[in-house]
Amino acid sequence: MEKYVYTFGGSEAEGNTTMVNTLGGKGANLAEMCQIGVPVPAGFTIITDVCNLYYENDGNYPEGVTEQVDNALRYMASVMGSTFGDPQNPLLVSVRSGARKSMPGMMETVLNVGLSPKTMEGLIKKTGNPRFVYDAYRRLITMYADVVMEKAAGMEPEEGQGIRLLLEEMMEELKKEKGYALDSDIPADELKTLCDGYKAKIKEVLGSEFPDDAMAQLWGAVGAVFKSWNGKRAVSYRRIEGIPEEWGTAVNVQSMVFGNMGENSATGVAFTRNPATGENEFYGEWLTNAQGEDVVAGIRTPFAINAHSINAANEELPTMELKYREIYKQLLDIRDKLEAHYHDMQDVEFTVQEGRLWMLQTRVGKRNGPAAVRMAVEMCREGMIDEETAIMRVMPSQLDELLHPMIDPATEGRYTPLALGLPAGPGGGSGKIVLTAERAEELAEAGEKVVLVRAETSPEDVHGMHVSQAIVTAKGGMTSHAALVARGWGKTCVVGCGALDINVSKGTVTVDDTVLKEGDIVTVNGTTGNIYVGELPLIVLDPEKNELLSTFLGWCDEKRRLGVRTNADRPEDAEQARRFGAEGIGLTRTEHMFFGEERILAMREMILAEHVEEREKALAKLLPYQRADFKGLLTAMAGLPVTVRLLDPPLHEFVPHEKELIEELAEAIGKDVDEVNARIEQLTELNPMLGHRGCRLGISYPEVTRMQARALLEAAAELKQEGIDARPEIMVPLVGNHKELADQKALILEVAEEVKREKGLDELHFLIGTMIEVPRAALTAFEVAAEAQFFSFGTNDLTQMTCGFSRDDSGSFLPGYVKKGIYGADPFQSIDQEGVGQLVDIATERGRERNPSLKVGICGEHGGDPASIAFFDRVGLDYVSCSPFRVPIARLAAAQASIQK
Amino acid sequence: MEKYVYTFGGSEAEGNTTMVNTLGGKGANLAEMCQIGVPVPAGFTIITDVCNLYYENDGNYPEGVTEQVDNALRYMASVMGSTFGDPQNPLLVSVRSGARKSMPGMMETVLNVGLSPKTMEGLIKKTGNPRFVYDAYRRLITMYADVVMEKAAGMEPEEGQGIRLLLEEMMEELKKEKGYALDSDIPADELKTLCDGYKAKIKEVLGSEFPDDAMAQLWGAVGAVFKSWNGKRAVSYRRIEGIPEEWGTAVNVQSMVFGNMGENSATGVAFTRNPATGENEFYGEWLTNAQGEDVVAGIRTPFAINAHSINAANEELPTMELKYREIYKQLLDIRDKLEAHYHDMQDVEFTVQEGRLWMLQTRVGKRNGPAAVRMAVEMCREGMIDEETAIMRVMPSQLDELLHPMIDPATEGRYTPLALGLPAGPGGGSGKIVLTAERAEELAEAGEKVVLVRAETSPEDVHGMHVSQAIVTAKGGMTSHAALVARGWGKTCVVGCGALDINVSKGTVTVDDTVLKEGDIVTVNGTTGNIYVGELPLIVLDPEKNELLSTFLGWCDEKRRLGVRTNADRPEDAEQARRFGAEGIGLTRTEHMFFGEERILAMREMILAEHVEEREKALAKLLPYQRADFKGLLTAMAGLPVTVRLLDPPLHEFVPHEKELIEELAEAIGKDVDEVNARIEQLTELNPMLGHRGCRLGISYPEVTRMQARALLEAAAELKQEGIDARPEIMVPLVGNHKELADQKALILEVAEEVKREKGLDELHFLIGTMIEVPRAALTAFEVAAEAQFFSFGTNDLTQMTCGFSRDDSGSFLPGYVKKGIYGADPFQSIDQEGVGQLVDIATERGRERNPSLKVGICGEHGGDPASIAFFDRVGLDYVSCSPFRVPIARLAAAQASIQK
Repeated sequence: MEKYVYTFGGSEAEGNTTMVNTLGGKGANLAEMCQIGVPVPAGFTIITDVCNLYYENDGNYPEGVTEQVDNALRYMASVMGSTFGDPQNPLLVSVRSGARKSMPGMMETVLNVGLSPKTMEGLIKKTGNPRFVYDAYRRLITMYADVVMEKAAGMEPEEGQGIRLLLEEMMEELKKEKGYALDSDIPADELKTLCDGYKAKIKEVLGSEFPDDAMAQLWGAVGAVFKSWNGKRAVSYRRIEGIPEEWGTAVNVQSMVFGNMGENSATGVAFTRNPATGENEFYGEWLTNAQGEDVVAGIRTPFAINAHSINAANEELPTMELKYREIYKQLLDIRDKLEAHYHDMQDVEFTVQEGRLWMLQTRVGKRNGPAAVRMAVEMCREGMIDEETAIMRVMPSQLDELLHPMIDPATEGRYTPLALGLPAGPGGGSGKIVLTAERAEELAEAGEKVVLVRAETSPEDVHGMHVSQAIVTAKGGMTSHAALVARGWGKTCVVGCGALDINVSKGTVTVDDTVLKEGDIVTVNGTTGNIYVGELPLIVLDPEKNELLSTFLGWCDEKRRLGVRTNADRPEDAEQARRFGAEGIGLTRTEHMFFGEERILAMREMILAEHVEEREKALAKLLPYQRADFKGLLTAMAGLPVTVRLLDPPLHEFVPHEKELIEELAEAIGKDVDEVNARIEQLTELNPMLGHRGCRLGISYPEVTRMQARALLEAAAELKQEGIDARPEIMVPLVGNHKELADQKALILEVAEEVKREKGLDELHFLIGTMIEVPRAALTAFEVAAEAQFFSFGTNDLTQMTCGFSRDDSGSFLPGYVKKGIYGADPFQSIDQEGVGQLVDIATERGRERNPSLKVGICGEHGGDPASIAFFDRVGLDYVSCSPFRVPIARLAAAQASIQK
Repeated sequence: MEKYVYTFGGSEAEGNTTMVNTLGGKGANLAEMCQIGVPVPAGFTIITDVCNLYYENDGNYPEGVTEQVDNALRYMASVMGSTFGDPQNPLLVSVRSGARKSMPGMMETVLNVGLSPKTMEGLIKKTGNPRFVYDAYRRLITMYADVVMEKAAGMEPEEGQGIRLLLEEMMEELKKEKGYALDSDIPADELKTLCDGYKAKIKEVLGSEFPDDAMAQLWGAVGAVFKSWNGKRAVSYRRIEGIPEEWGTAVNVQSMVFGNMGENSATGVAFTRNPATGENEFYGEWLTNAQGEDVVAGIRTPFAINAHSINAANEELPTMELKYREIYKQLLDIRDKLEAHYHDMQDVEFTVQEGRLWMLQTRVGKRNGPAAVRMAVEMCREGMIDEETAIMRVMPSQLDELLHPMIDPATEGRYTPLALGLPAGPGGGSGKIVLTAERAEELAEAGEKVVLVRAETSPEDVHGMHVSQAIVTAKGGMTSHAALVARGWGKTCVVGCGALDINVSKGTVTVDDTVLKEGDIVTVNGTTGNIYVGELPLIVLDPEKNELLSTFLGWCDEKRRLGVRTNADRPEDAEQARRFGAEGIGLTRTEHMFFGEERILAMREMILAEHVEEREKALAKLLPYQRADFKGLLTAMAGLPVTVRLLDPPLHEFVPHEKELIEELAEAIGKDVDEVNARIEQLTELNPMLGHRGCRLGISYPEVTRMQARALLEAAAELKQEGIDARPEIMVPLVGNHKELADQKALILEVAEEVKREKGLDELHFLIGTMIEVPRAALTAFEVAAEAQFFSFGTNDLTQMTCGFSRDDSGSFLPGYVKKGIYGADPFQSIDQEGVGQLVDIATERGRERNPSLKVGICGEHGGDPASIAFFDRVGLDYVSCSPFRVPIARLAAAQASIQK
């Protein structure tokens, strides 16, 4: 018989942490905690395979599961000393999901399972606390009706609506009627009556009876958890996070322990290190006489667990360190035990039931970027992990946060905050206030920056949160939904900002006398919790001055095989990138150099020229500008290669298209307006992307190539004479046929000879190579490589042509494609490995076959995408080139790619 | 010692026709003629290797050549009875080039070599004709100065300028001065003086003496011929014809015989069969007392050789058959001997010197299309060749001539073309100029013949195009809209005729100083690209009534492996193609069915719909039209497959773009003009070729696919019930990812089930497949083939995306590319085998690997191109599909491909 159920508890367990695929993250960790002697309420895990079998068999369980569950319940009884469903000494259980990867809030949970009129009396006798028991019963009925029964009845009300709302309204009415301020003011007998009312309401609305039977409740809850694996929220979360459907979820059934059994009971969540800063300090929140939900939900302001965890909101409240000194000491021991065991920061849930500490969960804690880097470096220095592990601990996207904007501290002091909340996600962000996730998406799609302001957030808001510059909530604590999600994404976030009065229907946010409307701009400081009206200047950290980061990236550099260059058109960008660790320029777009008043005029003269001589005259005016630009770039990158791409865009991008501007131009260059119009008309193309551009220009107008080659080589020659080590690499764009490259190469070599002669140089070092961006070039790479010293994949254009998508026009269908799963990700963001990647692979192999010394790199947008970088490493490219701010990310991604290989 | 020199003459020869690579075509044929007993003036050939060695050794000959030439001259003397350079009995020689392949007029020739004051007296004595001798001397000096001396002096005057012109002017002056009308009026003594004047002028202009020495002349002439192998004309001809430089040319030195030694001398050219009709009749022209040049140059009107050769120009002149009865009989014998030997029609040159017949040259004769077919079939029937040889004897392009009305070649030469464009649709057409499609329809309805002249055409013009005799555009290339549509209909078309300045509002077409008005008559030659003012006579051949052609194509069908289908959108076209031998439809473009007044309105309603229901309502209006169209096509092709492509072009091609038309449309469909404008604006794309089109439309709007599938399957179901064997194949366009095809396939299968249910059918036969036109689809063909029953290569789009050329925009650079040899041919006309072909190969192999029963065809323009067809045969495709008028061509090309394999 297949083993479907694994027990844990009482310092032993059938599973362990290596079985995460079978037991899910939570189950594996609970088992592991038992194994290492951490006090965990006994329970068992129904494995993930059962989830798949459940779906395959139309909601039936495979043979043996029932029996194994019964055995496991007997085991729990033996460890906990009370028995599930026993009227005298009943054990209550929680039923929770647990996938391989945590999917917080995406699946269902039912607590207090096993409570019914049959078992209630025994529990009352045992606890001597009828109010607690009826309250637990009330909670069970509410949760069970919502999670199990409503779904079973085929009803799908809006979130927050439905049976749960109806039941909660009943309690609110009771409180109003009796004048009770708090839930806890309701006495036991009234709770009892309320529970009866609940059950009647459920019968009325859902058409079936609440099951007052422990086993029925248990199986109802287990089924609801399995079903929730394919609920809307879970499915959409999986799509975003790339979690395969076939992983399935496990179900964890665990003995309930209660933090709400009075003042010597408590519950809390904690991180073994500070997840926002990475400091090696125990960090957490707790509440006395509360259930775990209460801490997370943000209804009561949680207390700090210790001095380190104190913030503005809880500084008046007691810490566990002071109030429950002994228990805190136990917790601190467990913290050390867990870190020593897991070699990573843990996120734990604990409950104190009548003075006894129980650990309910441990898992690897989420952390923001700065914290991830700090923990990785410090744990490595502490000897807890090695460098490779440290490198794998930081997600490339997390580095973004370090490089991400923050409010300029130099000027922030001049502004008066509108309000202060909890600093849940560091960094700074500005944008228009939006009050709903939908509106956030709308404006963001229209290219607006937005700040999402909500009373609190729920999993339904994640899309809107994702597109926002910052997230602000009026309610909630540091471990509220908003805080967790924002930190996961490295997004600026302030929570629990009680001063905000949000009115969604009116579209206003009021703070005292200040009324802000949707669309007004605010700036959020997620590091301090301050919120400002208006747009404050943001700055970006200098990673060079961040010792932890530079140490970390230093380790990355030691491990990676792939070189990292940058795409830069200006010396400032090149310098910035060099500070970020760029090892050269992989792409300089020369066309950007043609804008600017005098340059564009000369450029237009060149374009409108009627014969070679006129064109050459105009080009002669451009030459000194180009040469100076090139000198700047080559100097900024002295000693490192600088790849310069020859003129690429179609010429019509350089000419004006409005009547007045055309007239002005005609006058400025002394031509007839009709003539200018005619030429501009002639330049118009139906599909400019596939038109007269790239090396096709240089072949039609060799004088353009000559001018650009001359400007670059003169710059290099002059720098050489000045003692600066300039290393130009001339890149011919849009080659599809090796003869195009041969044609342009011949011109460049001719110019090089001229320049050497004129400058009196015996030697001038430079390379000639080509972009591989036309599918034909990739397919005929063997021939092209005979003419090239390097290849650089232009994966943007290569994607456009290989997939047949115009980047400019794909907005009308590509998002739909990604949604439908036709492409796993937007192929312009992460390289399409099956299609475009195949060409990269083919071209690299054939190119090197012909020319073993061929340097091969990539300079498209994909050069900064971690998944793409791993692919390029696998294919064996020499380097990636990306925008300056992605250079550190590329260094990390390249290191991770090496390690994973 | 290497043998460099091969002699021939006197019924024997050292070489033969198999040695064409060594001796060149002319030399090998002269040798071969001797071998078979044809009277040839004795001579020798210096082999092609010497040409290469001459260049390798800086103009020096390899050791032994001089000695071998001396021996050969001795051999000639022994055969001819006179000796080169002998003052008493001198032999004169011609020095001519002779490459492996004929390069007519591209290299140099010197005649009368060996004549000088030393040998002149002997010749005068021998011939008794001093005038003849001085005239020969004059010709030698002129030719030698031009061909040998001017080049040696390093002068390169324009063609027709230089020393030749100066000398000719001297003679003209003399004639003027003395009042002579003809060259032949100049008496011997004045010719003598003129020759002295020539020599003085040469000394003056070129700085060196004319060599009055036989051997010096001989070597000078030989060197000039070798040098001319790398002359400008020869090099550019070789590039166009694809002749490798390393082939080199041979030099033929041959005894001069003179047709200008009086009235019992003559010269002529003849074809062993009529090259214009193919009739098995000896055909030729001749002149008495003339040199060969005189016949070809057209200064005198040549006589007919026999009754068969008489035409309007020579009917009053004597025939050889009558005048030189005996010689003619000899010539007729030789004609039979040559055809029997060469098994092909020969083109011969002959000279009669004082009553003795000499053959100077034989080679395979050029012929036009009708003649090629007739000769091939008749020679096969005569037992001269077998069927395979017959098939190889007709060039596919020659069949074109049989299928289209053409300008009568007998008279076309008398007219001067107005302008030259690209020959996009072969044949000839005359009619009144019209500048709009509407005007074309108007006049055509009134019974007028019209020629539509546009800057370029769009789908809105198709009706006007259809009623025109010919279409001319100022812009666009060989695969522009106009070219594609015209070829599909077998209509005469010239595109990209940049010389035309079209002014629609004034109703004029201007070419330089010529201003044509709407209504003026022009004639268009779509085979050459020439446009003439006025009406030129046309001739037509009816292929069905042409027994020879149908026999010939029958043989082709027996030999070919490739299937041949047609691209057809209308039943008439399908029927036409079926008559031409099409074995099904490879491509029906459904979008053409959406034009027509009511249809386009429903189509526009569909496009402008705001939600699915509105869209479905509009589609419901289109459905009956489509179904009726499909029934027509399926009926026309009953028993044969009909491939229908789902909607392909971007939607903006269906909406109006002019203000007035937009307003009309808004009113017609009851929408706000602003709304309509906004939607049209939204449809505009930067690169529509790579935009929202093809299956992307069907994925965004599944209801469109559903309507089309329903129309086709309902048509098939109804025909089945009527007892007609309908075989639809549904083709999903622009697939790049197998999931796109899977998506569309699921929709179609759903519709099929519905239709079967509704029609009460148990079975409905149809296939689902895809165009392979996106490079990614080719690269991932293994996956795509899992969803497809057939692949059909859309090589037009595949070429656009693989090479990165927009067909519409490539006119600005592609012609230059072909000129520079970057592409051997326009890749839109003949498939780019190295690049695009590689994808065809990959996709076919991978597709069949996954799905061995996959049918693979091609439906792009290349399906009608012979070189491409040979490639597709090699790759192993199942069929090609081309426009109806190219079906016979494809049948032939496919047969030739099979035979060559």
